[in-house]
Amino acid sequence: MIGKILRFSIFGESHGVAVGTLIEGLPPGIEVSEDEMKELLRRRWGLPESSSTRREVDEPQIISGIFKGHTTGAPLAIVLENRDVDSSYYEEIRYTPRPGHSDYTSYVKYFGFNDYRGSGFFSGRLTAGMVLAGYFGRKILEMEGIAVKAAIRSVGNIVAKFSEDELFSSKDPICPDVEAMEKIKEKIAEVRSDGDSIGGIVECVARNVPAGLGGPFDDDLEGELARAFFAIPAVKGVEFGMGFQLARMRGSEANDEFGVKNGKIVTESNNMGGVLGGISNGMSIVTRIAFKPTPSIYKPQKTVDLRSLETKEIKLHGRFDACIVPKAVVVVESMMSFVLADHLLRRYSKLHFMDKFKKDKEMG
Amino acid sequence: MIGKILRFSIFGESHGVAVGTLIEGLPPGIEVSEDEMKELLRRRWGLPESSSTRREVDEPQIISGIFKGHTTGAPLAIVLENRDVDSSYYEEIRYTPRPGHSDYTSYVKYFGFNDYRGSGFFSGRLTAGMVLAGYFGRKILEMEGIAVKAAIRSVGNIVAKFSEDELFSSKDPICPDVEAMEKIKEKIAEVRSDGDSIGGIVECVARNVPAGLGGPFDDDLEGELARAFFAIPAVKGVEFGMGFQLARMRGSEANDEFGVKNGKIVTESNNMGGVLGGISNGMSIVTRIAFKPTPSIYKPQKTVDLRSLETKEIKLHGRFDACIVPKAVVVVESMMSFVLADHLLRRYSKLHFMDKFKKDKEMG
Amino acid sequence: MIGKILRFSIFGESHGVAVGTLIEGLPPGIEVSEDEMKELLRRRWGLPESSSTRREVDEPQIISGIFKGHTTGAPLAIVLENRDVDSSYYEEIRYTPRPGHSDYTSYVKYFGFNDYRGSGFFSGRLTAGMVLAGYFGRKILEMEGIAVKAAIRSVGNIVAKFSEDELFSSKDPICPDVEAMEKIKEKIAEVRSDGDSIGGIVECVARNVPAGLGGPFDDDLEGELARAFFAIPAVKGVEFGMGFQLARMRGSEANDEFGVKNGKIVTESNNMGGVLGGISNGMSIVTRIAFKPTPSIYKPQKTVDLRSLETKEIKLHGRFDACIVPKAVVVVESMMSFVLADHLLRRYSKLHFMDKFKKDKEMG
Amino acid sequence: MIGKILRFSIFGESHGVAVGTLIEGLPPGIEVSEDEMKELLRRRWGLPESSSTRREVDEPQIISGIFKGHTTGAPLAIVLENRDVDSSYYEEIRYTPRPGHSDYTSYVKYFGFNDYRGSGFFSGRLTAGMVLAGYFGRKILEMEGIAVKAAIRSVGNIVAKFSEDELFSSKDPICPDVEAMEKIKEKIAEVRSDGDSIGGIVECVARNVPAGLGGPFDDDLEGELARAFFAIPAVKGVEFGMGFQLARMRGSEANDEFGVKNGKIVTESNNMGGVLGGISNGMSIVTRIAFKPTPSIYKPQKTVDLRSLETKEIKLHGRFDACIVPKAVVVVESMMSFVLADHLLRRYSKLHFMDKFKKDKEMG
Repeated sequence: MIGKILRFSIFGESHGVAVGTLIEGLPPGIEVSEDEMKELLRRRWGLPESSSTRREVDEPQIISGIFKGHTTGAPLAIVLENRDVDSSYYEEIRYTPRPGHSDYTSYVKYFGFNDYRGSGFFSGRLTAGMVLAGYFGRKILEMEGIAVKAAIRSVGNIVAKFSEDELFSSKDPICPDVEAMEKIKEKIAEVRSDGDSIGGIVECVARNVPAGLGGPFDDDLEGELARAFFAIPAVKGVEFGMGFQLARMRGSEANDEFGVKNGKIVTESNNMGGVLGGISNGMSIVTRIAFKPTPSIYKPQKTVDLRSLETKEIKLHGRFDACIVPKAVVVVESMMSFVLADHLLRRYSKLHFMDKFKKDKEMG
Repeated sequence: MIGKILRFSIFGESHGVAVGTLIEGLPPGIEVSEDEMKELLRRRWGLPESSSTRREVDEPQIISGIFKGHTTGAPLAIVLENRDVDSSYYEEIRYTPRPGHSDYTSYVKYFGFNDYRGSGFFSGRLTAGMVLAGYFGRKILEMEGIAVKAAIRSVGNIVAKFSEDELFSSKDPICPDVEAMEKIKEKIAEVRSDGDSIGGIVECVARNVPAGLGGPFDDDLEGELARAFFAIPAVKGVEFGMGFQLARMRGSEANDEFGVKNGKIVTESNNMGGVLGGISNGMSIVTRIAFKPTPSIYKPQKTVDLRSLETKEIKLHGRFDACIVPKAVVVVESMMSFVLADHLLRRYSKLHFMDKFKKDKEMG
Repeated sequence: MIGKILRFSIFGESHGVAVGTLIEGLPPGIEVSEDEMKELLRRRWGLPESSSTRREVDEPQIISGIFKGHTTGAPLAIVLENRDVDSSYYEEIRYTPRPGHSDYTSYVKYFGFNDYRGSGFFSGRLTAGMVLAGYFGRKILEMEGIAVKAAIRSVGNIVAKFSEDELFSSKDPICPDVEAMEKIKEKIAEVRSDGDSIGGIVECVARNVPAGLGGPFDDDLEGELARAFFAIPAVKGVEFGMGFQLARMRGSEANDEFGVKNGKIVTESNNMGGVLGGISNGMSIVTRIAFKPTPSIYKPQKTVDLRSLETKEIKLHGRFDACIVPKAVVVVESMMSFVLADHLLRRYSKLHFMDKFKKDKEMG
Repeated sequence: MIGKILRFSIFGESHGVAVGTLIEGLPPGIEVSEDEMKELLRRRWGLPESSSTRREVDEPQIISGIFKGHTTGAPLAIVLENRDVDSSYYEEIRYTPRPGHSDYTSYVKYFGFNDYRGSGFFSGRLTAGMVLAGYFGRKILEMEGIAVKAAIRSVGNIVAKFSEDELFSSKDPICPDVEAMEKIKEKIAEVRSDGDSIGGIVECVARNVPAGLGGPFDDDLEGELARAFFAIPAVKGVEFGMGFQLARMRGSEANDEFGVKNGKIVTESNNMGGVLGGISNGMSIVTRIAFKPTPSIYKPQKTVDLRSLETKEIKLHGRFDACIVPKAVVVVESMMSFVLADHLLRRYSKLHFMDKFKKDKEMG
């Protein structure tokens, strides 16, 4: 369960009956569209170049929580059936965990009872549930005028160049820098032909976020976002604003000075990525998420037989992504949207209190 | 409230009566020592070179949860009185938020009712509660044979060099690389004399962590750790294993191949930092946390009067840290210890179930 | 979400696609049987005499969390399709809430966006999800040797007489007192022919519960059980042991004195219903749950049009239960089983800690 | 931790340093008064007739969360020092648990490490923390115009008679029925002179509660209130509206028909105690809570030595309440106030959403 007022869980296994999400705490009356959901789910396909994996035309089956095209406010469950699943391969690798995968750790955690077919509950397929939950977060943010957009910032050593404005004005759902994307596609093709894979960074920005979301300690907006991002498979690092660069900077360079723009308090730079003290400051929230190269590669690798403890060589076959970063863009957006929507709904409670009882909004 | 079985909250304000922590879910019977607590609290002083701030000899006042030198299992509250507090200065900056600080965002979040003296609840002083909570996490981990140790990895562009073994064998509580520390001290002195500040990176490693802690989605060990780290003031980035470097790597370089050592499954490298699929894999958990330069600097900065929206220049005076990274080492260790102890206690529930009912520990 | 280590949510609407449950935190390796689930679901039909409502042959569709006949430990979702649903009637009463039903309050809570057909998420149909979640609680309790059994204690003024031993030795799933049941059936038939309904009390007992489950304040076993029981529709009172009778008693009558039986500490009476200070004391946990008469009756009743605020008379038609108490027996058992299993798993964490580190189990 | 948006924990032991509460999630800007807190704490003394126990003039020491007389919104900790504590007696009964007390169960739960002096964390003294937390709940409810009042409904077989209006217009903080109270005082005096104790029922009513608080399943208002009431020591039963009486009634008697009063939808009776489907319906919330007789009596009782398992006779000495019901009145009020305030703040989130985006508040 991720979230506090607005919460969601995911369920399902890669090669089971279906995957899905259960969302609780939604406000009633949000108009929803299955077409919009499908459009988001399609973005999970990523690039044709990066992926040779199955591309399921996912038909979201709404089980509950929507009535006459609107959220009811009751728990909302959506299920996506799994199709064209071929699990025959996975018996082979049941006891010989694939390096870099969750095979070994899920075996230990679940004492060998885990559904090991296609990574089971740990599969990237489960991110469909995140995208669906994020859809409802998006709808809430849209009402407030908040926009969330992510893009590939880098793949391997190729860095895309784009400003925040270019990010939001671009129609490309994966990256606004067309030239960099050409190189990225080539790189992915090259890596694929090597039977290898490659990592990358997704940058995600939320615009028009009001100041005051989040809080210190367990309400910390960065902490809550980071926790949600790390729930996405393959994420190994999260930073906000200038992030790790800040560790090299001086305070006089890093501090964002305050100014006024259109009668509103702003900062003149945004090195902090829109968050101060765990609370949004009204500037764009900027975060970068590092994805490791997908562990599925065609090169032979060393593993160990979990029963005999003998060392073995493993050589994977099947359809893999050479780079999951293009697919991850919409997942990152979705997680950010969901977490921000939860924090917005938390904030609404206090805003209502203040509007009602403390119109002057400050002590004497 | 951070944690699930083992949980803690912090409370207090920098210039209020006291700060403290409330810990719930502790196992009974843990032998505790006030001297050990004080020793940990002293480590929060950091380097003499980096800090000119108040160094309170903190006397932990145990309010509840300890009886005859052992935890009772009931909620454990500890309070540290604030002394030598001079708040006169803070009226000055009440409406002119310091750049990079939480002044502005806490003003917005709390509608002007926040205790603005010395950053109130957002002060670094509150990390004393984290250290105290972490003390109990440490005690639990020690029983299991798990060791957690952090050190400065870098300050500005100066990078300390140390292996994991050097980290654990070093007696220095801040950094095993003596040469680098000399440079770091010089750098901090230089920055201080400029009236400026500087950021850095803390690396934290947990050794002898059993495989099987954590889980996917909301149990994700990386996500839970990251959330705890971001609760520490000034943290702007968190990564595990090779972290952001993984985004540049190929799968064939990044994947940790499996092997056997002393009859135990290990990986031959540890690029993943001991976590696969959100679950510990038995290797050392390695994480790096980026701290921004402390925002308190003596250089004049631009701010805005919150009432009139006029632009003003602000020049801070008082005692500041030129670099908080040395102080942060023990705080990072504490947060990691607490989160791991919580996950260990969660794991114990399933281990007890398996020990009792499923000795064979795997399905047919 | 009910529970802490073992948790579940329900979802679905009476006249929607399906109802179901999502269970998180299950131990892996529990052998499960769809036939057993179906058998429990059938018990929700109650008596032929009390019910003229639809009796769906529920086919549990397992979406996730079960693999090769065992729980995997991953989130477990089960869905029950709704069939033979006729919602035409409900448009009629959309704006004229039925007295005693949730029609009015769900309209207010969800601002008119609730699925009002057949009470939507508030329908008794949703208790199927509770029964399914409870099934997994039962399986865990069985391993520990804990048995949970409920029965009708009264309907209207007819009180069934049975001892705890009779309750557990009886093969009747609803009530061990055959004579009382005859009268109850007659009473229900009489009430039905009047177009009316009637309330009753379910008693539920858990046997062989180890001492030490629960705790003070938010871990209070009675409080956690009560919260779960009140989640069942139509529950208006919960008591433990002698319950409300204790308010009339003296301490010398009420206190259960301690004794020893088969080398184990017991109490010589069980007025406290097996719970002292919120913690199980090793005696049977005894609870009684009061159900109001089902609000659906055929007699004309006064209501108000929600739009015009005009007073109206409403006369319900359709198939109703004249008494839901027979159906509720298995639901009460299920909720008790789930909550106890959660508390058992919480307890296991501490037991594992003590077994491992504190074999002597007491301070000097 | 009780509550969701507004949450509190209690800590401390009867014979330890202090007791207290930690409250999180408070709105900022609530004006608070230590005198009001003390006044509430004084009500915990109950009747002179019922109690010979220590009457500490509690001085609330505010640790955090209040600044310039208002809540800041940060965690609020209050501590009450323990004074005049004589623990010498308790070594005597350390291994011979008092019947009806938590001595035995806390010994088991905490493996003998519990603070057994004066019941430790299980002591009635801890209810001071509930009263303090409840104070902040009250302040929030007052702003909304909600009033919460409790009174003794019965002690032993003596039943006080009072209407809801009499309850709220009475200035007596314990019971509006003066005649019944005379009898109750006599009864308590009689019981005391017998060295015995007696139980009773507290009734608590909340007036002017808006419709729409609470929800189904885990948001159920009755369930949440019940859970909070069972956290009060000695509570063994909770019912709403006609409660257990409803189990004997017919639907035609029990259902509250709808009507209109002053342009507002009301029910013409209030058998449901203001809650339908777990959600407030705008009528007064009426609940009754059964308290067992305090287990501390002067009569000799059988117990068992926890080490030798030998049967022993125990005869308590010291100062006890012959009836805790008078003291419990303010505690019940406090718990109800806190839970309602939490639910009000949850509701505010949705109200703000609807006010902002769905002014028409219903789908087409």
